Amino acid sequence: MKKRAGTAVLLAALILLSLPGMLYAYEPLVEKKAFELREYVTVGGQRIAPVRVGYETYGKLNASRDNVILICHFFGGTSHAAGRYAATDKTPGYWDVLVGPGRVFDTDRYFVISIDTLNNLNTKNPTVITTGPATIDPATGKPYGMSFPIVTIRDFVRVQYELLKSLGIKKLKCVTGASMGGMQAIEWAAAYPDVVEKIVPVVSGPQAQAWAIGWMKIWADAVKQDPKWNGGDYYGREEPLDGIAFSNKIMLMTIFSPWRADRNFGRKWADEGKSPHDAMENKFLVEQFLDKTASAWAGTIDANALIYMAKAVELHDIGYGFGSYGEAVKRIKAAVLMVPSQTDILIYPYHARQFVEAVNKAGGRAAVFEIPSWEGHMGGIAGDILKAEIDLRAFLAR
Amino acid sequence: MKKRAGTAVLLAALILLSLPGMLYAYEPLVEKKAFELREYVTVGGQRIAPVRVGYETYGKLNASRDNVILICHFFGGTSHAAGRYAATDKTPGYWDVLVGPGRVFDTDRYFVISIDTLNNLNTKNPTVITTGPATIDPATGKPYGMSFPIVTIRDFVRVQYELLKSLGIKKLKCVTGASMGGMQAIEWAAAYPDVVEKIVPVVSGPQAQAWAIGWMKIWADAVKQDPKWNGGDYYGREEPLDGIAFSNKIMLMTIFSPWRADRNFGRKWADEGKSPHDAMENKFLVEQFLDKTASAWAGTIDANALIYMAKAVELHDIGYGFGSYGEAVKRIKAAVLMVPSQTDILIYPYHARQFVEAVNKAGGRAAVFEIPSWEGHMGGIAGDILKAEIDLRAFLAR
Repeated sequence: MKKRAGTAVLLAALILLSLPGMLYAYEPLVEKKAFELREYVTVGGQRIAPVRVGYETYGKLNASRDNVILICHFFGGTSHAAGRYAATDKTPGYWDVLVGPGRVFDTDRYFVISIDTLNNLNTKNPTVITTGPATIDPATGKPYGMSFPIVTIRDFVRVQYELLKSLGIKKLKCVTGASMGGMQAIEWAAAYPDVVEKIVPVVSGPQAQAWAIGWMKIWADAVKQDPKWNGGDYYGREEPLDGIAFSNKIMLMTIFSPWRADRNFGRKWADEGKSPHDAMENKFLVEQFLDKTASAWAGTIDANALIYMAKAVELHDIGYGFGSYGEAVKRIKAAVLMVPSQTDILIYPYHARQFVEAVNKAGGRAAVFEIPSWEGHMGGIAGDILKAEIDLRAFLAR
Repeated sequence: MKKRAGTAVLLAALILLSLPGMLYAYEPLVEKKAFELREYVTVGGQRIAPVRVGYETYGKLNASRDNVILICHFFGGTSHAAGRYAATDKTPGYWDVLVGPGRVFDTDRYFVISIDTLNNLNTKNPTVITTGPATIDPATGKPYGMSFPIVTIRDFVRVQYELLKSLGIKKLKCVTGASMGGMQAIEWAAAYPDVVEKIVPVVSGPQAQAWAIGWMKIWADAVKQDPKWNGGDYYGREEPLDGIAFSNKIMLMTIFSPWRADRNFGRKWADEGKSPHDAMENKFLVEQFLDKTASAWAGTIDANALIYMAKAVELHDIGYGFGSYGEAVKRIKAAVLMVPSQTDILIYPYHARQFVEAVNKAGGRAAVFEIPSWEGHMGGIAGDILKAEIDLRAFLAR
């Protein structure tokens, strides 16, 4: 009898412990807003006019406007970091587990904001607002296409700065983001050292090295291989969906992990009745997964935006414009918590460790927490980000 | 004075220690020979007639014909494992550091043989002899193209078995090979348990799991994306060289390593005067490296052969035809030394460890030596294979 009661108490305790995850989701419906800059001059000196980007916010801006956390999105991502647009939405924003009352980015305390980048990929996603090659160039009345200026991660950050300024925000408690989002966080710390108090770049690094550049080239070339890409001139015609889907497939593999792939799909066939031994077109399940996922996503992506985004990541280097990497590191005043994923094969953890060392050597304050993840690059975007929860909370509380 | 003499002695000793590598290269010129099978029926029950494959040998077959080591080649490789065809050849075969008098595969003791696979990729390499989709089908007088039967790693092994039989060879001291070459070694041990005494599969595994299947799909799809591939019907016309080159680029990245890439290329530009910031087409050095290497290689490759080879690797499963993986493992009588590379992201070391465990559990004798390499998959093909030298020598001597 006592034993049973003990078990019941234990069960009740376990249920109580698991409640926060269920209870603390961000409840208010999320609204997409638009910000417009009459004109913007890129780091490379090119003029884009106007520039429009979308953004969404969670929680409330306090009177002194200094409780702001900025979440920057990854390569293929959008500003939909958390919450739901409608009660019927099946899934919330991608980092929802981190955002909400009592969560790491606590919406009872912080005003959390996320912004669609300049040149967001997902131009056909109705919730995305961005300016890029698919945008109508007012000078010609036609999409910019490949005449759109080359943009960099620094440009994304500078547009975000203007947006925040328009909201009267002059200080950021923290800038964070996964992958390309983390690159933006680092650029923020170097470009606006007096604005940013803390940064948490997840599965990210301070500059693209050859390995990352190689993959970016391959993601971009996959699109260019499609004859329908036509040198970037495809607007109003059939778009290079096969090229985009193929690029997505390669991207999926590089952000995925062998353990996850092997566990989920093993050597299973796509169709039980069709052995891959019997015909070239008979697929394994993992092939079908790649095809379906990639094709479904391709429909929302602008081909040229993908190519411009790959270029932006290739060009990512906080040293650019500041004389050198070392000079840029010296500018950083924000406290830094780098959060790589141990099994990431796109951006290896050593980039994070080296950056931490460089910041500390320059007199800054940086630390690293490696997520013990089997999920590869995805470990930081979705899979295992909550394994960093204790470190994130401690870093924000410091 | 004494100090100087000491230094001289030390230098002399160091030179002597490095001599073996220089002296023990395989000296005799290597000759490519051809083997023809009047007809061959694939594991899948399809007839190919005739089948011709090339092979080369190093060292001498002894009177009892039992001093044979078979080296199977990797996905993009050929039977040119060691030595030179002409004294003027700039580079020897890819595993030359392992083959020669006094080397691991000691040509003073062993008769080393390497065979072009069925469906070798490099149909336009004049030293390769193979039968595949680019071969003329005697029934039609035209290349087989995509009507060529699906072939598997097991088929490669069965053709090799026939070749060895024709040379009067009934026993193999050791079957080895890197990557797909190691897959053949494992298939040998399962298919011909009474023939094979030892196997040394390097950067390899006993079956393709989802992760490897995903990459094979992507390598093959890269070719199919090229409209010149035309469903495999391109013989006598312009061949899909862009598609092949693109596939090669992806392959290069998956077998490469971030440490090697970042160290060799960093953020260097391809052309000092052309900043990648200034134009879409201005490349980083790593991009130029990928483009040049891939394009140079594409000229020797048949597009359909690449697609068939990717399929062969996808289908690789020693369990196939033996009821199950477990049954196949039970068949193996050869001693096994698995040699994965610690930083391999194409075939992770865990596949080797799991196979070793399975063999030992089934009462066999298997061990693993993980090459402490920063060179990724290439660590086993070229970069760091000599780091396994002591373990390889001990295993062969046992």
